Amino acid sequence: MNRRMVAFFVGSVLRIEAVLMILPLVVSFIYGEDEWIYIAAAAVISFLVGYLLSFKKPKNVSFYTREGIMAVALSWIFMSVFGAIPMWHAVSHIGFTDALFETISGFTTTGASILTEVESLPKGLLFWRSFTHWVGGMGVLVFMLAILPEASGENIYLMRAESPGPSVGKLVPRVKSTAKILYLIYIGITLSEMIALMVAGMPMYDAVVITFGTVGTGGFAVTNNGCAAYTALQQGIITFFMIVCGANFNVYFLVVARKFKAAFTSEEVLSYLSIYAAATLCVAINARNMFTGFGEALHHSFFNVASVMTTTGFSTTDFNTWPVFSRMMLLLCMFIGGCAGSTAGGIKVSRIVIGFKTIRKELQHLVHPRSVKILKFEGKPIEHSVLRGINVYFLTYILIFAVSILLVSLDGKDFTTTVTAVIATFNNIGPGLDMVGPMGNYSQFSAFAKYVLMFDMLAGRLELFPMLLIFMPMTFRRQK
Amino acid sequence: MNRRMVAFFVGSVLRIEAVLMILPLVVSFIYGEDEWIYIAAAAVISFLVGYLLSFKKPKNVSFYTREGIMAVALSWIFMSVFGAIPMWHAVSHIGFTDALFETISGFTTTGASILTEVESLPKGLLFWRSFTHWVGGMGVLVFMLAILPEASGENIYLMRAESPGPSVGKLVPRVKSTAKILYLIYIGITLSEMIALMVAGMPMYDAVVITFGTVGTGGFAVTNNGCAAYTALQQGIITFFMIVCGANFNVYFLVVARKFKAAFTSEEVLSYLSIYAAATLCVAINARNMFTGFGEALHHSFFNVASVMTTTGFSTTDFNTWPVFSRMMLLLCMFIGGCAGSTAGGIKVSRIVIGFKTIRKELQHLVHPRSVKILKFEGKPIEHSVLRGINVYFLTYILIFAVSILLVSLDGKDFTTTVTAVIATFNNIGPGLDMVGPMGNYSQFSAFAKYVLMFDMLAGRLELFPMLLIFMPMTFRRQK
Repeated sequence: MNRRMVAFFVGSVLRIEAVLMILPLVVSFIYGEDEWIYIAAAAVISFLVGYLLSFKKPKNVSFYTREGIMAVALSWIFMSVFGAIPMWHAVSHIGFTDALFETISGFTTTGASILTEVESLPKGLLFWRSFTHWVGGMGVLVFMLAILPEASGENIYLMRAESPGPSVGKLVPRVKSTAKILYLIYIGITLSEMIALMVAGMPMYDAVVITFGTVGTGGFAVTNNGCAAYTALQQGIITFFMIVCGANFNVYFLVVARKFKAAFTSEEVLSYLSIYAAATLCVAINARNMFTGFGEALHHSFFNVASVMTTTGFSTTDFNTWPVFSRMMLLLCMFIGGCAGSTAGGIKVSRIVIGFKTIRKELQHLVHPRSVKILKFEGKPIEHSVLRGINVYFLTYILIFAVSILLVSLDGKDFTTTVTAVIATFNNIGPGLDMVGPMGNYSQFSAFAKYVLMFDMLAGRLELFPMLLIFMPMTFRRQK
Repeated sequence: MNRRMVAFFVGSVLRIEAVLMILPLVVSFIYGEDEWIYIAAAAVISFLVGYLLSFKKPKNVSFYTREGIMAVALSWIFMSVFGAIPMWHAVSHIGFTDALFETISGFTTTGASILTEVESLPKGLLFWRSFTHWVGGMGVLVFMLAILPEASGENIYLMRAESPGPSVGKLVPRVKSTAKILYLIYIGITLSEMIALMVAGMPMYDAVVITFGTVGTGGFAVTNNGCAAYTALQQGIITFFMIVCGANFNVYFLVVARKFKAAFTSEEVLSYLSIYAAATLCVAINARNMFTGFGEALHHSFFNVASVMTTTGFSTTDFNTWPVFSRMMLLLCMFIGGCAGSTAGGIKVSRIVIGFKTIRKELQHLVHPRSVKILKFEGKPIEHSVLRGINVYFLTYILIFAVSILLVSLDGKDFTTTVTAVIATFNNIGPGLDMVGPMGNYSQFSAFAKYVLMFDMLAGRLELFPMLLIFMPMTFRRQK
């Protein structure tokens, strides 16, 4: 492995992180908070370490899959470690493990929190906490690709390793241009939501941080009861933008490129919207007695189903008290997740749809053994390598899921808490049920369980394999 | 589809069932019970319906995969419907749904019960209930193949559809001989356990029914507290035979054929024993405080891990009260299940091992993209069709599992009960946790939930696809 090149990449990411920390620093100054010093210190340390790792570009710039995967995994880990510094020092009674948990939860757009109380925390710190969602949503390496000169032709590996979903391709021939277009769309959606929320009467600070949580599909809020305090109109706007950010960004690219027909017939997005509509209706009918009328049930169902399906994790009400069928439906939506090529987590709608088609093909094959049918997705035949990738993904997903539950169960928390904590972190949602429900938090887990859940958050965000590979000795062995 | 040929097969199965009912009828006579009349009636009705369906062999004997799958699915359903007659009439306050649930649970070797009290029930009836485990364990169609003249060369389809696991082949060239050899081994194991239990001091009646429950990996007991009443030696014998019956029967065939080296190096059986040993040790250490000493913890861990891993479902103690890690480990073992080609349910060890190897290969491929590695199992390269079959199996398994949980959750039972009821029936174990734990039962579910769980038991036993196909219109459509 070309370790120098990996270090150069990680260093560049840390330098970018230092620059990004200027924004929360400014917010801290504006509100006249003493905690600006911790954010400044974190920025300086990140920049120095980043500079040491990347002050000179290696002569050997060879950069293949292995290097790409390592660069992604290590960048995310280092970014979280340095990003945790402000919270570690600024919040009393918080150890490094908890600060790291909160920061990984931020960058991976999970939104799982160990904080029992947020309203009293410094505004600059909460701004940084939510800003990590925005940065992590599109991927910091994608950002780097957008602004740095191209290092080599192999950059697509980086983007593949960090992008959610199985089929992220290049929108335009050059990787750098693709990354730039994605970020422009991302910024456009972000500004639209901020303005919409402010027009609907939300204070500017809330509008900004809630927008970070929405478009990154993260879910950190700045009040103790999530989004319950906002008006129905504001909640409706958030619902709309959660659904927008859980859809495949390729669609927005197609809209920008005026290819409306292709945009509005995307099989993945149509499936995504159908699943969302069906789940919302089922939950609204099942949970209608929890509300004053069916209209209110539908409103909260629209919000909370969107929140878990896009893996955002905001909540307007404690869905942990809903009937068991509604809770199961929410859990199912947590597994499904959003579209590939969105900022959402979960298994992704495209994998689910292709999985369904695989089963249907098998049943047809059993009934008519001589019939030959080719699986298609988005109107094109699915390549064998994509199918194989999806199958391996499902197997790996089950493996990590099972091992995580076993390890977390060593903590001795109840069955539902243990299982849903893993579901909610591995799929990058945030809240689960019972102790980790919308009104609960992750503070009561042991440090060991927290590290397992941190692994799950990173594994979920980085499509499983990078996080497995950094624990495999063969990754570091020389090729024979 | 050749419907006449399918009807002919189902009719033959019902005639065999009628003959098998003579045994519980004799037991009922011996104990002088009035309920013999219900067993006799069921036998006569089964025989008559069976005779009507199969009194004349169709002229067109063509019999392909589609016919084989339908014959298997419908045979199991009809067999259960007619097998439910004695319990339906002999037990007061039991409706047809409950009687059918108990009988499907018997034939599929699940052992999930709707009975709140068994000790007061007629002995002839309990004998039939446990005998269904023995019949269902090896598969009634395999039995038919062993005794009927061969209908056509396509019988292997029948056996494949009914046999557990992905890789059941022919042991000897002729299907009929393979079926005979399997049944001889099965009878040999059955007699060995009966004798061993009687030598260890168990009453003959108990020894016989417990043996049926063990070798069929079913789990119906004849006392209200399962196997807790038996001595440690008797429990040890049951443990041994559970493990024996969860191993691939090919191994016993190899032993009989004096191919000892091949028998004792079976990759699947060695993996199975390793997983069993590791899980037992973990549970014993974790649950040691529930017992007077580590020795006792080990004894109960040996028994109960064997019971869930082989999907038998006997219990010596209420493992629902064990620490959450132990319960999670038991649940994990429920999913893994026994070996392919055994009487056990679950996903099967061979699929798990091949799944692991697939993940490892993918990771190696990511690190060394140019390396070419062929997946091997039992020393032989795995055919592409087998790999594809395993992947589709996992996808279908997840689909049925998720839909079942959603449907059962409509009952409004708690989270753990809902999830583990599906786990315990779909994997053909019997007891789950909480309300359906070793000391609980399935009586409190609604009729709808019971039918969903019955579907799961049949789908689990018949390797998913036959039960899906009987609900697909395309199965019955003419081929274009």
